[in-house]
Amino acid sequence: MRLSASVLTAMASSFAVCRLHMRGRVVLVRSLQKADTFLQRSIGTDVAAAQAEAPPRDGSDEKDGCKSLHALQVERQEQAERSVLINCQSRTNEKKFLKYLSNHGDIKKYFFYESYGLYAVVEFAKRENVASLLEGAVIPSVSHESTVPFKSRLLSLRNLSLVDLSNQQSGLQCQPQTTIPINEFIQRLSKEESIDQQITSLTEAYQLTEENSRLRFLVCSLLKDIAAAYFPECTIKPFGSSVNGFGKLGCDLDMFLDLDGISGRNPKSGLSLEYQMKRANSERAVTQSILSVIGECVDQFGPGCVGVQKILNARCPLVRFAHQPSGFQCDLTANNRVAMKSTELLYLYGQLDPRVRSLVFTVRCWARAHGVTSSIPGAWISNFSLTVMVLFFLQKRSIPIIPTLEHLRDLAGPADKSVIEGNDCTFVSDFSKIQLKSNTETLEQLLCEFFEFYATFPFSRMSLNIRKGKEQNKPEVAPLHIQNPFETSLNVSKNVNATQLDRFVALCQESSWLLQQRETNTPRGGANMTTAWGLATLLLPSQVAGIKSRKKRRREPASERIKGLLESLKNKNQPKTS
Amino acid sequence: MRLSASVLTAMASSFAVCRLHMRGRVVLVRSLQKADTFLQRSIGTDVAAAQAEAPPRDGSDEKDGCKSLHALQVERQEQAERSVLINCQSRTNEKKFLKYLSNHGDIKKYFFYESYGLYAVVEFAKRENVASLLEGAVIPSVSHESTVPFKSRLLSLRNLSLVDLSNQQSGLQCQPQTTIPINEFIQRLSKEESIDQQITSLTEAYQLTEENSRLRFLVCSLLKDIAAAYFPECTIKPFGSSVNGFGKLGCDLDMFLDLDGISGRNPKSGLSLEYQMKRANSERAVTQSILSVIGECVDQFGPGCVGVQKILNARCPLVRFAHQPSGFQCDLTANNRVAMKSTELLYLYGQLDPRVRSLVFTVRCWARAHGVTSSIPGAWISNFSLTVMVLFFLQKRSIPIIPTLEHLRDLAGPADKSVIEGNDCTFVSDFSKIQLKSNTETLEQLLCEFFEFYATFPFSRMSLNIRKGKEQNKPEVAPLHIQNPFETSLNVSKNVNATQLDRFVALCQESSWLLQQRETNTPRGGANMTTAWGLATLLLPSQVAGIKSRKKRRREPASERIKGLLESLKNKNQPKTS
Repeated sequence: MRLSASVLTAMASSFAVCRLHMRGRVVLVRSLQKADTFLQRSIGTDVAAAQAEAPPRDGSDEKDGCKSLHALQVERQEQAERSVLINCQSRTNEKKFLKYLSNHGDIKKYFFYESYGLYAVVEFAKRENVASLLEGAVIPSVSHESTVPFKSRLLSLRNLSLVDLSNQQSGLQCQPQTTIPINEFIQRLSKEESIDQQITSLTEAYQLTEENSRLRFLVCSLLKDIAAAYFPECTIKPFGSSVNGFGKLGCDLDMFLDLDGISGRNPKSGLSLEYQMKRANSERAVTQSILSVIGECVDQFGPGCVGVQKILNARCPLVRFAHQPSGFQCDLTANNRVAMKSTELLYLYGQLDPRVRSLVFTVRCWARAHGVTSSIPGAWISNFSLTVMVLFFLQKRSIPIIPTLEHLRDLAGPADKSVIEGNDCTFVSDFSKIQLKSNTETLEQLLCEFFEFYATFPFSRMSLNIRKGKEQNKPEVAPLHIQNPFETSLNVSKNVNATQLDRFVALCQESSWLLQQRETNTPRGGANMTTAWGLATLLLPSQVAGIKSRKKRRREPASERIKGLLESLKNKNQPKTS
Repeated sequence: MRLSASVLTAMASSFAVCRLHMRGRVVLVRSLQKADTFLQRSIGTDVAAAQAEAPPRDGSDEKDGCKSLHALQVERQEQAERSVLINCQSRTNEKKFLKYLSNHGDIKKYFFYESYGLYAVVEFAKRENVASLLEGAVIPSVSHESTVPFKSRLLSLRNLSLVDLSNQQSGLQCQPQTTIPINEFIQRLSKEESIDQQITSLTEAYQLTEENSRLRFLVCSLLKDIAAAYFPECTIKPFGSSVNGFGKLGCDLDMFLDLDGISGRNPKSGLSLEYQMKRANSERAVTQSILSVIGECVDQFGPGCVGVQKILNARCPLVRFAHQPSGFQCDLTANNRVAMKSTELLYLYGQLDPRVRSLVFTVRCWARAHGVTSSIPGAWISNFSLTVMVLFFLQKRSIPIIPTLEHLRDLAGPADKSVIEGNDCTFVSDFSKIQLKSNTETLEQLLCEFFEFYATFPFSRMSLNIRKGKEQNKPEVAPLHIQNPFETSLNVSKNVNATQLDRFVALCQESSWLLQQRETNTPRGGANMTTAWGLATLLLPSQVAGIKSRKKRRREPASERIKGLLESLKNKNQPKTS
């Protein structure tokens, strides 16, 4: 029995407490907002979080502090490779479970969560421990069914002994978690004492948790095992919202198959041997081949992988599937290096000043609540566009809160140089080189100014450019023009139509106006407040959502507007014609 | 430099001689007779055979002597896993090539052959040697093209040094081989002094060579690497003509994915972990899943694998492809255990008495020459049916040459017990237990009697049964009824229609008649004979091929009939309506 002391201590002391509170942050349950794309049913991945080791409270931002995204990814990947995902029976006896697992090695960390049943993520100290665990695992014998004997690190716990059933009292405390409806959350927001606190509370409530982040890397690692069968040197990295610091719980898991590690030394003179390899006309065709095979494997072999679609003719070919044990909607791409650079850039900006993450987070939640963004592709503003808009706004403060991309490029060292497909993607990786200006604006001020800024921005003439941190004349006709930070000839928001831009502007005007009203910008009373105020008001259904002019807007008590919320949200999520 | 002494000796002494003669047996070149199924072009896999080690002449029959097919397969598989397949430039300097390779370990055996270029099969002493070789191999850099970076044991030799080009004199002697046309071979047969010699000569000329057999196992092993990526404990075994002892050079490579080695210990009591695995409704569905993925991999990644077809809805799902570097047309199946047992049985019968192989071989060649069998599926008699017919005939001799399957089952020990899907597939594996009767008939007699036997067999009433070694009343209506040796309720020749059976009977009558004529059953003169006689006459185009009655047959000088041969063969290979 090699169960580490800290695990045993935590086990002994924490069984009786509800584990909703973890590392000082409320771990919220939430529903995947993609009922439509994910098997026509809504599922919840509720990180119920039996957190074995309780490291000193630090918050994941501070913890990962000045680490570059690359360093963070390497660390998380290594962690994930030492981890397994285990489906448990609801009556699993936690103590026996841990004792059983620790026969194979020290457990560094573990936690439970609910998603189509009870699951545990278990991180061992060494990869050999995982190998040992798998060595002892058996192939299920199912009557009337057959199984595809593909072995992975996704396992099921079976309790063959009836004795344990009597131990219900010492059983796992973790119960299925339900999602907190948005109107409940709005009520909670209304109890905060300042708009700054509301923004912080929103961010803390919906941001990715430590556990959710681990789970994302674990799913990448499980998928990597499939890809590595043919490309042993490959890695699969999450990118986008899963790692840029701005992801909400429940966001898609975007993954990137990186084959650049595949080595082939350059031959010297004389005889040499080359691998015979299939050839294709283009890198794109190679990517399609590889994704086609991986998609087929995921579809036929991948346990818990359902709804697999090979979308190989897209501009960026991808394999899409739902990973039931984690509840993630997954997109796997390959050779998507510019997207990875964009992720790194967003991550860097988010790390520079805590206000960046909070403001982006709040604007993203606000936009989603009003149907400005959507999980369905269409003429909507994307989360990426919206984030660039916030970054641009922060660059444009009289004392800029974040530097321009050009400045970050100028600070880059020789090792930072990066040119991808002819695009200069160079920027500094050493955060300590970046000197920030002493802007002291509050989150409330910034949020208010953000809405004001875009309520009056000359979208018809100007393009947003975060490389230079200033607007420029539009190089081409498009309702909204945001220069792609790396592929500078491209417009990030090319998809956005005039109707959607107008809605966004109208909503900015409304929100700006609301935040200037005394009735909405001050708390309404004591701890039992139920009337929405501040940020809560901004998240209620808007009166301008469907119209282009502020003239038709009429005010009604915010409490009235809560009722129609779900109905209204439903309607807004319908695809619009562009 | 760890080149073994025997290799060096062989190198030094054998460069100047033409290597067509190997182990005392004429190694024939032949064209794949499947121009239609294989990329619309005929290719030749010419084992040009620079045989490094020259083991004492023993003939592969004697060598593999009393080894069971299973033991033989295990040995060959292990050999194949220590081997690589290398595409060489035509000017490859053999000495330098071997010196280069032996940097990675001792070479146990190697040989060259032609198939879309010059190839070498190289067997190392240890698997680590292969790993070392691959470690040093590079990924090709091709301009204007991209490659799928899947690494396998199929390599290409590149010579980056211009110096070696001056060494043309010491270069490899191996030249591209052309196929020997069948009419040339008929002429050669006519020079033999007896029909027995003709039969032996035919067998030796067209049977699989040692090298071709190695190449077949190597292709299985390369394919196993692809399957083992997901099923590490799997094996891929050749079955059918490739290993039953009756295969002709150029026959299809039938392979069988064996997943039975995948272990999963039975859990004791208490907690246990199971792999989570995809489930399917049936074993068949699992087989389809697995073959679908492997087919996709072969198609997208497999170097030299072309024309990949997934034929998953067939009674026995399969993946079909052409393997260019070997020239083999490959069929991969899974869970095809009864077919493997049938192969073992045929192999056993072929090992019991050398006349069995020679007679089966001759009848197969005769049947192919007259279009009785075909590479295209249809209402034809299959090679398997034909072989069972020969075995049945040999059981029916007044002194039987081979025992019945029931007898072989009665000799089986406990370890031989085999029941597959409810079918008793048990028969003895220890050849030494089998006592043969002292039949001394010559091959000539047997061939003649074979034709006589089937010229007069009561096909309309009776079924052939090699389990009992006697004919039985037909259990169901079918022109030709041959009981499946293991799945005894099935008719092996269910596909054969009356027209095809009638042609077969007419040809047996004709051949029987020809062998009884003095003009055909005696040699025509000295060493310069050009007039066909004996077996050669039987291989010439028949006069009864298209007709049902012997009445219309008219005789013309055999030499005349050579001319129309290719034309006639072409026509016969057209699909017939059944």
